Amino acid sequence: MCPVPPPSPRRPGRPPRPDNAKARAQLLDLATRLFAAQGVAATTIANIAQRAGVTPAMLHYYFKSRDQLIDAVVLERIVPVIGFVWAPVPLDAGSDPAAHPDPAAVARGFITEIVTRVVQSATEQPWLPSLWMHEVVNEGGQLRERVLRHLPSDRLQAFAGLIAECQRRGAITPGVEPRLVFLSILGLTLLPLATSALWRRIWQNDPAAQSIGNDAIAAHAIAMLTGGLFTPPPSPPSGR
Amino acid sequence: MCPVPPPSPRRPGRPPRPDNAKARAQLLDLATRLFAAQGVAATTIANIAQRAGVTPAMLHYYFKSRDQLIDAVVLERIVPVIGFVWAPVPLDAGSDPAAHPDPAAVARGFITEIVTRVVQSATEQPWLPSLWMHEVVNEGGQLRERVLRHLPSDRLQAFAGLIAECQRRGAITPGVEPRLVFLSILGLTLLPLATSALWRRIWQNDPAAQSIGNDAIAAHAIAMLTGGLFTPPPSPPSGR
Repeated sequence: MCPVPPPSPRRPGRPPRPDNAKARAQLLDLATRLFAAQGVAATTIANIAQRAGVTPAMLHYYFKSRDQLIDAVVLERIVPVIGFVWAPVPLDAGSDPAAHPDPAAVARGFITEIVTRVVQSATEQPWLPSLWMHEVVNEGGQLRERVLRHLPSDRLQAFAGLIAECQRRGAITPGVEPRLVFLSILGLTLLPLATSALWRRIWQNDPAAQSIGNDAIAAHAIAMLTGGLFTPPPSPPSGR
Repeated sequence: MCPVPPPSPRRPGRPPRPDNAKARAQLLDLATRLFAAQGVAATTIANIAQRAGVTPAMLHYYFKSRDQLIDAVVLERIVPVIGFVWAPVPLDAGSDPAAHPDPAAVARGFITEIVTRVVQSATEQPWLPSLWMHEVVNEGGQLRERVLRHLPSDRLQAFAGLIAECQRRGAITPGVEPRLVFLSILGLTLLPLATSALWRRIWQNDPAAQSIGNDAIAAHAIAMLTGGLFTPPPSPPSGR
């Protein structure tokens, strides 16, 4: 990945030459990985330049300022993942119950797809869980405000609306808060993904635990979310 | 809480006088809250002293060094919470299946108790979720190694053993990874607790969302974990 070829001067308003676009993308990837590994606050332009084997001036050539570099990481690396993860949920998911004779089956399908996409994104972009935990989940996280603005509130609300409709029909367990289900999906995927080095050490003498990979994390989350932890669950006597 | 009364000199080896113990506890509480709010790395002794309205020398009087202050936060503020949360799970929970005619009922009881204790701890000590997320979950978290050594591996393994036994008996959904269930409990409690300011903004025009409190988070987690999200879950035809 380094050293990055030096940019050639170009006239304003013209698209970057292919070489430049590639160098820029590599620098953006490196910045994203460093932000995830050591935190945004601790990662300076000089630091990224040093790791890339280029001058700080070259970073400024591509991104103008640290602030614009952070914006580029959010807009070009994080926002596309958010879009990919939530794309399966249409904006009218919760609004037309009559269109769904079995809304619970629809909701199960969305959840399976969302979990699969979160874990696939984290497999392809291993920086994702730690960057999310460090910079979005944490109060004081440097990306929190910038990412919040790009969360698909409309889709999250449509999804919660669908869960609420299922609950009205008796297909969702009482006590479940429909607005918290999307967070439950993130908690069951991003937390084990972000802490795998940690929990592997609790089971350091257990070879089977060491081999729990992203596929098993996805299967676990889907099982917990669509089947429930316990099966069959406790039912009222009338249901037996 | 501030200013803290100045300590009186005491001979080594004698227990601190009650006044000193109280002042020390107040400084420790403040340090813990600052660690949670702004991160351990960003919080200096001088910073804590300034916020407490005392001199850095007084911090050093009570805690000798920044390193020992961090140890005191872990040992006196975090480790007791971990002990409280996992106390319901006996060390032999997973080892004697014959002693449990209905191990799934036992596991459900443990889970309900653990969720209740996590949320109760976070209600009484609001710094808990963000400190945990920031300094233990994050790679590079300053408390990760120090807390890891105090995680109750024996109880976590006993708990996983019980879940595995339930799974062998057909009472736990296939696909669930018994060793990840304790993380699922944390994901369903600490994540919504740590991000409540964030998700409330997604539902900023929904008064009902603003009133989702810690009780509702606990009820949601218990419903998800003991009843499953969907009810009744899909069963094989033979089970119907």
